[in-house]
Amino acid sequence: MKIGILGTGTVGQTLGTKLVELGHEVKMGARSATNEKAAAWAKAAGAGASQGTFADAAAFGGLCFNCTNGAAALDAVAAAGAANLRGKVLVDVSNPLDFSKGFPPSLFTGPNESLAERIQAAVPDAKVVKSLNTVAANVMVSPGSVAGGEHDVFVAGNDADAKRAVTEILRSFGWKHVVDLGDVSAARATETYLLLWLRMMGGLKTPTFNLHFVK
Amino acid sequence: MKIGILGTGTVGQTLGTKLVELGHEVKMGARSATNEKAAAWAKAAGAGASQGTFADAAAFGGLCFNCTNGAAALDAVAAAGAANLRGKVLVDVSNPLDFSKGFPPSLFTGPNESLAERIQAAVPDAKVVKSLNTVAANVMVSPGSVAGGEHDVFVAGNDADAKRAVTEILRSFGWKHVVDLGDVSAARATETYLLLWLRMMGGLKTPTFNLHFVK
Repeated sequence: MKIGILGTGTVGQTLGTKLVELGHEVKMGARSATNEKAAAWAKAAGAGASQGTFADAAAFGGLCFNCTNGAAALDAVAAAGAANLRGKVLVDVSNPLDFSKGFPPSLFTGPNESLAERIQAAVPDAKVVKSLNTVAANVMVSPGSVAGGEHDVFVAGNDADAKRAVTEILRSFGWKHVVDLGDVSAARATETYLLLWLRMMGGLKTPTFNLHFVK
Repeated sequence: MKIGILGTGTVGQTLGTKLVELGHEVKMGARSATNEKAAAWAKAAGAGASQGTFADAAAFGGLCFNCTNGAAALDAVAAAGAANLRGKVLVDVSNPLDFSKGFPPSLFTGPNESLAERIQAAVPDAKVVKSLNTVAANVMVSPGSVAGGEHDVFVAGNDADAKRAVTEILRSFGWKHVVDLGDVSAARATETYLLLWLRMMGGLKTPTFNLHFVK
């Protein structure tokens, strides 16, 4: 599949590399078509990897991942362009974290909204699926490295087919437990969960962990 | 130990009954000293159980549980009285849920505050410990009924001795994994987690579940 990645940070690079390894063609998008981090990544990730602007990546991908930091997400999606994302799945991995007052960060969204909903409102013809924002980048692509893979990842979005497509990619990463939380407003649940994730990381002294629901 | 319970709902009754079973003396407090639910509970729960006003319960208990619904919590704590709670542990089990717009409920607190912090500010000489608000009442007192007890409960508060006292009670309920998340501001993490808990309950069709962190 042709996949666009918005963002050049650890999350974008880790997902991009894994997707190339799985045989996908991946274009990493940045504000500039010649972004140095994207260039270094494309060189290292191999033949299926390329780079461009946010708009280039969105136009290239049949499916796109938003891997920007939360504060930059809406600008990146705007630069990607509603026309380039029309009818496409946009997997939103970002979190509305505000680090301006130190650690642990606070949320810049209100208590009853979410960044994913803001993004869905900005590109109403894209099919936003919130996913993977609840784990560290290394866990995203290597769930088996935590507790034998016996832990959970979530999908939330308004389009059932889009969630199925994302679930298929998650399974190709090795995820055993993909929990569908409902429509895109369920992103409120997984984005605010970051507050608990951050506290747990502080106690566990590692980002390589996850939650598992049991009954 | 003498324990006060603020609130007459399912959580207060379930905790109160368990505490009486464990040999504690428990006074359930309500707005009225003759509250019918508290009277019925005190009659059913046995010799260690009694009832009174919020102030009676707070004065009676060496340690108190706030089991009111979130919207009523600050009024109940005010009625209990700062003098009656001075120097005492106040375990806050409430959640800032607003059901006025239907299900799932929203939060009535802002993104970067918590009900526990509001309560701590209202009674600065009490030692507020947020705990047990992340599970259903039946799971609070019977953690072994879920996945053999292999799941987590949290404590958050500013006083280490208070958290130790609460942890001892939790262990007497059967909790194996009590996670100290830090000071009372960590209640932001466990209160907003309710949004995820509620979505999970909707999918699992039961409140008898919990989360377990694995690494």
